[in-house]
Amino acid sequence: MTNPPFDFSTFYNDGLPAPAALTDGSFPKFNFVGGHNAPDQVPVEALLAAANKVIKREGKNLATYSPHGGPQGYLPLREFLTQKLKATAGMDCDASEILLTSGSLQGIDLVNAALLSPGDTVIIEEANYGGCLSRFNQARVNTIGIPLDKDGMRIDKLEAALKGCAQKGIRPKYIYTIPTVQNPTGSIMTRARREQLIDLATEHSVPIFEDECYADLIWDGQRPPAIYALDQTRRTIHIGSFSKSVAPALRVGYLVAPPAVMSQLLALKTDAGSGALEQMVLAEFCRDHFHDHVIALNTALKRRLDALTAALSEHFGTAAEFDVPPGGIFLWVKLPKEVDTSKLAQAALADGVAINPGAEWSIAGEDAKRYMRLCFANPDENTLRAGVAALAEICHRAFGVPERSANRDRSK
Amino acid sequence: MTNPPFDFSTFYNDGLPAPAALTDGSFPKFNFVGGHNAPDQVPVEALLAAANKVIKREGKNLATYSPHGGPQGYLPLREFLTQKLKATAGMDCDASEILLTSGSLQGIDLVNAALLSPGDTVIIEEANYGGCLSRFNQARVNTIGIPLDKDGMRIDKLEAALKGCAQKGIRPKYIYTIPTVQNPTGSIMTRARREQLIDLATEHSVPIFEDECYADLIWDGQRPPAIYALDQTRRTIHIGSFSKSVAPALRVGYLVAPPAVMSQLLALKTDAGSGALEQMVLAEFCRDHFHDHVIALNTALKRRLDALTAALSEHFGTAAEFDVPPGGIFLWVKLPKEVDTSKLAQAALADGVAINPGAEWSIAGEDAKRYMRLCFANPDENTLRAGVAALAEICHRAFGVPERSANRDRSK
Repeated sequence: MTNPPFDFSTFYNDGLPAPAALTDGSFPKFNFVGGHNAPDQVPVEALLAAANKVIKREGKNLATYSPHGGPQGYLPLREFLTQKLKATAGMDCDASEILLTSGSLQGIDLVNAALLSPGDTVIIEEANYGGCLSRFNQARVNTIGIPLDKDGMRIDKLEAALKGCAQKGIRPKYIYTIPTVQNPTGSIMTRARREQLIDLATEHSVPIFEDECYADLIWDGQRPPAIYALDQTRRTIHIGSFSKSVAPALRVGYLVAPPAVMSQLLALKTDAGSGALEQMVLAEFCRDHFHDHVIALNTALKRRLDALTAALSEHFGTAAEFDVPPGGIFLWVKLPKEVDTSKLAQAALADGVAINPGAEWSIAGEDAKRYMRLCFANPDENTLRAGVAALAEICHRAFGVPERSANRDRSK
Repeated sequence: MTNPPFDFSTFYNDGLPAPAALTDGSFPKFNFVGGHNAPDQVPVEALLAAANKVIKREGKNLATYSPHGGPQGYLPLREFLTQKLKATAGMDCDASEILLTSGSLQGIDLVNAALLSPGDTVIIEEANYGGCLSRFNQARVNTIGIPLDKDGMRIDKLEAALKGCAQKGIRPKYIYTIPTVQNPTGSIMTRARREQLIDLATEHSVPIFEDECYADLIWDGQRPPAIYALDQTRRTIHIGSFSKSVAPALRVGYLVAPPAVMSQLLALKTDAGSGALEQMVLAEFCRDHFHDHVIALNTALKRRLDALTAALSEHFGTAAEFDVPPGGIFLWVKLPKEVDTSKLAQAALADGVAINPGAEWSIAGEDAKRYMRLCFANPDENTLRAGVAALAEICHRAFGVPERSANRDRSK
């Protein structure tokens, strides 16, 4: 006689996230979600050459945990980063101030593990990365959302929020910002606003948590100095990633912090090091190819964005409003207020179109529901066009908008 | 005027681990700590060939998170594991019951995140992996230690512990065991004891957490069926690793669990997937080479163990007692009771010899202090011999033992 299958659920901690569906990860026909990149832009030949060189030269070193650099990660990649961050983001940092992480997500988790407890308050951009919003939710942390415009976080609103906190005796644990190619709005915070943000954070004695994981993906290559670079008070923790600039499946991100903070965060990184082979291959690749690769990648991404915006104009007409972003891999689209994008996302997925509904990418309440995030880096241009056409049909069916698209008036 | 450097410490959560020293990770001259492996046993040529094949064939797929298999990891590697676990551990499991993790440590962290809260109780082997002991400590979880002998966990003591818990109304969250090449004792739990453990766990309705990360490293290749394989009640979560059998710096481990548990653990794995390149290279390598590689590796490891035990006999004589383990990468050594290995470790490190003191690898209280763990996979045989000679000198200086070594009587 077989026992009934054992029930673990009565052993689980309270407040766990809902169990995940077990899937094979295959994409819907039209996939506008996820930070995936363009398969034809993976620098396969150069990565192959890098892998060959570095495995031949240093393969034996894989016998030890965290070879060539210790717990903070492969030193040649950290040294590449010191040069890259100086050249592109104006950051003066030493390799000892850099921690290589398993994607920038691990950086987010380390910072949150050090700083956030249930009931704490953080100040964030109102439209935000869904993965951060779900983390704050799971950690039972209160979020104060600051609206954005084309120049990034609205500093007047930030000032009001900080004053409000002070009046209520709330000490925010940090101001989290994605200043360069903000997710999902795509805005780039101006240098002036970065300086104002630092001034306000200093005045209110609040740390800054700067997430620049998209900062390499700018069409004109012009990136303002990182907040980390401008912040003389050293209250900023900075994270970045190679997931967006080289390949998402290589889980290599980085965190930059002053030594005392680095020591504390490193004590929380109990994973015996992030994968060294990926760090080695990246270091070898980046030294010779990163700069040119990113230029080529941005050219390709810009072409895809153009295809997406053209398709939206064609199929949604004036029903789809958006600011054309100066870089990145996503478009933040505002639809007429009768559209609830959570319902749209559900209907669309049933028809093979995946989108991010605004409610999962913004804490703006009711207003969030009319927005959607469309990721454009992975589908090719034809797929982008066909996907938008399909989405317009589904949206029309469910909400009566768009009324007109292309040469066809759907209201007739 | 520059502001004083910002002090993050007042923003930190309570109960964080002590800040870590920032190091470059370089080893002391004689390094008997850490799960490092033999550099000359890294299968560099075969890994290189595997990397070439798989990057050529699937490099483009690195453009998407978790390519070819979704969130549970690269499917070909999971499929290799289903065959390997069937052949070597008697486990019948489907690829959908396997989750690839960033080292088996991530598996430990996922299981603990699901099951353990402060004040909970777990039953563990008394001598244990230091990384688990520090995790329990950090999580404020109570541990009940079960003594071990050459056949693994003492089942009579386990039974007594479970009865004691029942009497006190304590429901342990799991029984954690490293049944095959136990860390640090090197024992292999007999099949009979595995069955008895399952019966007791069933009687007391406790989950089992089985850590088989060393199970490939057995000199005669004979591994008893995994507890997961023998457990008809499906109360077992199983973890394993390629860190020990192929290369530690490749951070690839795996977790095997029934579907409902898998769904819950997967929801806690919010890292957007573990590094795909390492999984791909391993899958390609393992299909053709894993079996032969492990045989060659074990031959080399056995030679190192022989060098270590011979050196201990030569330099420590009867002062060093140990059971010669049937596999693995460490030796658990008992010294005369006047030796405090925590003090020895400190003195030794100052002289370039690193050892694990028993107090960090056992919860046996006073008795733990006379033990030390010596890892032997990384240093070559000459280094092992020289390291043991140096350690004997240091130990004699500090504690007067060993009195005699080789042809020399240190007491004179």
